[in-house]
Parts: sequence; structure tokens; C-alpha cells
Amino acid sequence: MNRQELITQIKTKKNFLCVGLDPDVPKIPQHIIDDEEDSIYLFNKKIIDATAQYCVAFKPNTAFYEAYGLSGITSLERTLKYIKINYPNHFLIADAKRGDIGNTSTMYAKAFFKRLNCDAITVAPYMGSDSVKPFLEFENRWAIVLGLTSNEGAADFQLQKINGQELYLNVIETCAKWGNENNMMFVIGATKAVMLQEVRKIIPNHFLLVPGVGAQGGSLEDVCKYGLTKDVGLLVNSSRAIIYAGIGEDFDQKAEAEAKKIAEEMKFYL
Amino acid sequence: MNRQELITQIKTKKNFLCVGLDPDVPKIPQHIIDDEEDSIYLFNKKIIDATAQYCVAFKPNTAFYEAYGLSGITSLERTLKYIKINYPNHFLIADAKRGDIGNTSTMYAKAFFKRLNCDAITVAPYMGSDSVKPFLEFENRWAIVLGLTSNEGAADFQLQKINGQELYLNVIETCAKWGNENNMMFVIGATKAVMLQEVRKIIPNHFLLVPGVGAQGGSLEDVCKYGLTKDVGLLVNSSRAIIYAGIGEDFDQKAEAEAKKIAEEMKFYL
Repeated sequence: MNRQELITQIKTKKNFLCVGLDPDVPKIPQHIIDDEEDSIYLFNKKIIDATAQYCVAFKPNTAFYEAYGLSGITSLERTLKYIKINYPNHFLIADAKRGDIGNTSTMYAKAFFKRLNCDAITVAPYMGSDSVKPFLEFENRWAIVLGLTSNEGAADFQLQKINGQELYLNVIETCAKWGNENNMMFVIGATKAVMLQEVRKIIPNHFLLVPGVGAQGGSLEDVCKYGLTKDVGLLVNSSRAIIYAGIGEDFDQKAEAEAKKIAEEMKFYL
Repeated sequence: MNRQELITQIKTKKNFLCVGLDPDVPKIPQHIIDDEEDSIYLFNKKIIDATAQYCVAFKPNTAFYEAYGLSGITSLERTLKYIKINYPNHFLIADAKRGDIGNTSTMYAKAFFKRLNCDAITVAPYMGSDSVKPFLEFENRWAIVLGLTSNEGAADFQLQKINGQELYLNVIETCAKWGNENNMMFVIGATKAVMLQEVRKIIPNHFLLVPGVGAQGGSLEDVCKYGLTKDVGLLVNSSRAIIYAGIGEDFDQKAEAEAKKIAEEMKFYL
């Protein structure tokens, strides 16, 4: 999906919500576990069907699938395929946080863009240019580089200063030169929304993927205040607050209601 | 495997060689491709059998398996199992470069340590403490944190200075406090062997995983000069130089010869 198509989806639907598909088996409703062999896929399918009309993107975190080995990878591949076939206008992000030396990053890029047909993959910047650039070489595909993450540990390195500039800002400034607004986004943790001002000084037009609204505690109002651009420029993710909104037979309706609530708040800010 | 067992293996075999299992299908000998459905596994099996006597560790890089989807993951799992059953005294490293927020890192740790029974996994430090610590909570298992990598892009961030100290040294100093010599190692790229002196000032006793000797051009002599400790303290990896030493029917013998050559050089330095 290219930038203009993404913007059109957002403006048509009047929201910029990304639903994080992080299925933790102990949290999946019992009737789903009982019902079906591939309970992760069935859980996802119901969440996807329930929330698709209130979001523009889906983001499975690969850890939640890899944890279950071959069966988990099967669930992931089935989930990705289900979205691509049934919701082809949704932006599909593999939250994999990959990054390796050049030829190895190329292997990952091919796996996620070509074989799994994802629109975007999250990328760890620590290893530098040749670990990031291979993800930029596929038309209408995106590298979403970790800038500022929403976890406590972000303070350990990302907030340390390099030549008077926080590392995460240095990462954004440096990485932005390797790509452009059409093939690169950045992860910016919403728990520090005021820092979005600093980020926007460096990259006024890039899309930002903002995790941490909802269960991780970020404020959507702040994110919009400091992050919105004329082309919207935001994808705000919520995982747990939506997919575990309910634990009963109506968990999908609860998820739908939660997604709808966030989408309506977004409509207000747009 | 615990630290003392690893040291015993190294001192018994008189080498500290790690063989990187990075099977790139276009480089696998034709007769292996023709022979068997799971050619990656068969290739690995022959490399493992040929080199096991001349190395103390094996390190598959997960990208080379993920690139082939379910069949690749199957090859990886079969390879890991083959090593654990047939060479239980070899140290088994999953080169996965993972790192995510706390609960998600825990998912990865369980996947690699519990389900796949690896001794160690490589970990990306950018997201800080809660992304690294979950890998330290398993007895006799290891997090191998990326310190200085051997690729060109290492200069982009790792060599930038934070408060007068290069980022990679800051990463090592900070991360070393979260673990100890019994559950943490660091990746230090051998193309900058002289920097091992600086690393050894901070962590005089930790094991270092040194990639980049061989195809990536590092000098084993330099690595030993600056990196060896009384407990050896080094695992030096070679992937392409060994596994693609030959392309004919005797590729495994060629790999064996190359591993033997490196092992003998190591014996000389010990």
C-alpha cells in the first residue's frame, strides 16, 4: 500500500486506528480454546471481523506466534492471509523488530514483504544503515524504524544524549536520510507524547506508528495535539485494550465496542 | 549449559570455534537440493557432522530459516533437535537478535529457551532493560547482547559518543549490570579487534561472541591478542567461510578442513 492509499483510507474512515493482534493463549476466551484446533487463528478472525470497520491497520506482533512454534507460525500465516483476502484495504504491519547485517536483513525483508505480503515491518536501528536499507527496496512497502519506544527501558539508551541530542532523535534524523516519507515510518511511544513535538521538528511529514495508547497508558488527545499533520501522519495502535476487552462469548462485540470508541475519539480530533 | 561446562568444553577441545549455520538455498550444493525434500536440514546435518569435532558451538541465524516460512522453521527445529540429541555438549546459539517490551521479550525467551532448547539467544539492546532482562531469567541460559557489530552500519550509532563514551561501550557497561558472567555475553565484531581492549576494561571476564572472522575479514590473531582471558572468554564464529568452503559432493569434507584449520590456529593461540 502506498502513502496516498493509506491517507485515503484514513480520510474515508475518519480514523487512524491500528489493532494489535497479540493473541496470548491464556487470555483467549475458553469457548474459543475448546472450539477449534487453531484457536489463535479463530480468535484473530473474530477480532478482525469485529474491528475492521473501525480501524485502518492490523499489526500482529510475531513474538506471540513464534512462542508456539510451527503451529503459531501457521496461525500467523493464516491470519495474514485472511486479512489480505478479506480486508485488502487495511494496512498490514508485521511487528517483528528485525535488524541484521545487510544480506541477512534482505532475507527478513523478502520473508515479510514477498512471502507474507505484509505492507510494513518494524525494524530495530541499532546495527545501522545496512541493517535498515534492505527493507526500503520494495515498492509500496515500508520499514517502521523504532525511534522512541513506550516501555520503561526506553530511558536506558534512547533518552541518552549524543552530542546534545537524545539518541532517539539522532536515530530518527539519521534513518530519515536513508528513506523517505513513502517507504519509512517511525515508532514513537505515546507515553511521552510531548516528545512528539521534537520528533515533528525533524520529520514533519512522516507517518508515525504510536503504540501505548490504551493498556500502556498514553493519551490520544496529546498524541493528536503534537503528532497530527495535514495528511494525518499517525497510526495509533491499541492491542490489549481492544482484543481483551471481553473474556466471554461476546468478546468480539466487546472488542468492536472498544475499537468504535477509540475510532470515534479519533474522528473528533481529525 | 553453564559457564564452567562451556569452559571445560573449550579447554578439552582446545578451540573456541562457533560454526554459523546460515543455509542460503542458492548456495547449497546441487546434489543436496536434488536429493531430499528438506535440503536445508540435510545440508546442516552434513555440516554439523563434519565440523562438530572442531568446534564447541553452533549458531543458526533465524533469518535464513524464516525466509522459507513453515518449511524453513521446520528445518530450523529439526536442526536444533539434531544438535541437541547428537552433540549435547555443543553450545547452541539462536542468532535471532530479538528484543521487545517486557512481556513480549518473555514470549521470545520462552520460545527459544524452553520450546527450542537453545543455550543462548542474541538480543538487540535498543529498547533497554525490560527488553533484555526477560532473557536472563532462565537457569543456565544466556542472553548475548549486541555490543559492537561487524557490519559497516555499526558506525552509524554504535560508534557515536554518549557523554564521551561510544554507545557500544555504554551499552556493554549498562547491560552488564543487569546480568552477570553466568548469563550474559556480548557480540563484539572482530573487524575492529583493537576495540576489544576497551571492551575488556569494562568486562574483563564475560564471554564475547565474535563474528566476522573469515568471510567478513577479521583477524583471529588480533581477536585473541585483545580478547582472550584466563577462562578463554571467547567464542569466535565463522559461517560462510566454513559452510560454503566447497560446492561439490565433498562440500562437507571441505567444511571440515576449513573448521580444522581455524581450530588448529585457535589451539596455537590458547
